Amino acid sequence: MSILNIDNEKWFFEEEDGSTGMAYKIVEHLHHSKSEFQTIDLFKTAGHGNLLTLDGLVMLTEEHEYLYHEMLVHVPMLSHPHPQRILVVGGGDGGTVRELLRHGCVESIDMVEIDEQVIEVSQQYLPDCSGGLDDPKVSIIVQDAIEFVKKVENDYDVVLVDSTDPVGPGEGLFNKSFYQDIRKALKPDGIVAIQSESPFNHEGDVAIIYRKLRSVFPLVRIYLAPVPCYPYGTWSFMYCSKDSREPDVSRPDDARIIEKDCKYYNCKIHRSAFMLPNFMKEFVTSGK
Amino acid sequence: MSILNIDNEKWFFEEEDGSTGMAYKIVEHLHHSKSEFQTIDLFKTAGHGNLLTLDGLVMLTEEHEYLYHEMLVHVPMLSHPHPQRILVVGGGDGGTVRELLRHGCVESIDMVEIDEQVIEVSQQYLPDCSGGLDDPKVSIIVQDAIEFVKKVENDYDVVLVDSTDPVGPGEGLFNKSFYQDIRKALKPDGIVAIQSESPFNHEGDVAIIYRKLRSVFPLVRIYLAPVPCYPYGTWSFMYCSKDSREPDVSRPDDARIIEKDCKYYNCKIHRSAFMLPNFMKEFVTSGK
Repeated sequence: MSILNIDNEKWFFEEEDGSTGMAYKIVEHLHHSKSEFQTIDLFKTAGHGNLLTLDGLVMLTEEHEYLYHEMLVHVPMLSHPHPQRILVVGGGDGGTVRELLRHGCVESIDMVEIDEQVIEVSQQYLPDCSGGLDDPKVSIIVQDAIEFVKKVENDYDVVLVDSTDPVGPGEGLFNKSFYQDIRKALKPDGIVAIQSESPFNHEGDVAIIYRKLRSVFPLVRIYLAPVPCYPYGTWSFMYCSKDSREPDVSRPDDARIIEKDCKYYNCKIHRSAFMLPNFMKEFVTSGK
Repeated sequence: MSILNIDNEKWFFEEEDGSTGMAYKIVEHLHHSKSEFQTIDLFKTAGHGNLLTLDGLVMLTEEHEYLYHEMLVHVPMLSHPHPQRILVVGGGDGGTVRELLRHGCVESIDMVEIDEQVIEVSQQYLPDCSGGLDDPKVSIIVQDAIEFVKKVENDYDVVLVDSTDPVGPGEGLFNKSFYQDIRKALKPDGIVAIQSESPFNHEGDVAIIYRKLRSVFPLVRIYLAPVPCYPYGTWSFMYCSKDSREPDVSRPDDARIIEKDCKYYNCKIHRSAFMLPNFMKEFVTSGK
């Protein structure tokens, strides 16, 4: 993790691709610990609320986390005709669970987070994210999700993979075998949405993830959203359905209720998020 | 302008809102000058091509400038039924003119740039942007665009305002009186597109610009595009039409030809770019 001194002020700095980076001016370093899996830091920033980093990479700022969480959750949830049993992989900060709880049809949420310390730090410093973790519908399972999904079959309507980047503890969550286990864990009409990195990153992560998913799910669609606190400011997600259901708003009445509480998501955004730039179409059409 | 030393490497740093910033690793500082209007710097970056800054603010990187230029140009151009006479305000790097020249129907382009040095530096270090400036259809007028448009009436089909930020030499290009003069300079079915800053900036620039334009043009629509080299990674543009024409692809055959040469723009992007997040709808509906 880099802390820079600029004009006698402290700035958190995250490097991307070895050639660009983003920085946040820091008012206070509220937490630093090293769990069994990663280093966890929590900063109070000068202008963007609290900032959570894992192994020196930005997970969220309080100002902009809604963009990521609304889009990870509401696109698959409102595409599904009757989502009741939900699995969240990762998501220890609680933002994904918060958005899930807006859906009245949800009966139970299993959140499988490998690192209990992330949950504890979020409960202490990110109350707007983590507030829903105490909800009676939510079961928190502290375990490696790779092991967890191996034992699950035909159980979930929607799975949300709210992982870290494909380095460190999150790496295995980008393997084809994990995607196969998710497919198995889903009911026949199940949907999974997966955070899949920036389309502008130089490693081509989006294409790699897309091709793996295409070899596992009959239908995979990529969608995009602006997330200013992530590298290059635009983030991608993969929508995969087990029964080839295309992503669209399948419950318009519920969507109208949900979008009232959203700062970013609405039904038109739901559809337009799947309109891909030319440079992304290329690998989509050439992918298996 | 800030140059940081991080681990013995030089990084260009741009601060935004006093609390966040973006950085580029620099291989070589190729140019530094102070014109009558602003300081001009050109850097070779480690991973994103050459970088042009004016008064210490990023104007473009060679890697990502296509996103901004394609969206500033093709959305209004393909919405107009027969764009022939075009005015570019600013745009000294040449990227806007390059995209305009893809349109076979264009007969003449007047580019009014206040700072000749920007053109010269771009011609030396940004050949992919500036290559079209020598085209016989292009007239370069080195003048303050505010003075230029005062004397023009009913002359242009499309005006593109490719300005710097609303500080320094670009400030007057965000005034209501300038927008009124643009309206006057347009033909009755004319369209103007204007770069209008980041929707995430803390000053609320987008709302301010929108309200001014709404008091001048009968129809104003905001559209968005990812531009990783600009603050917060998402940029807004205003589409205004003098005859209330809505933005849509009005010449599908031409659009098919144009989009073949684009890395970002296509007809679906054209439409989806106007789908606004909830947090932006609020001021759009409350604006005059």
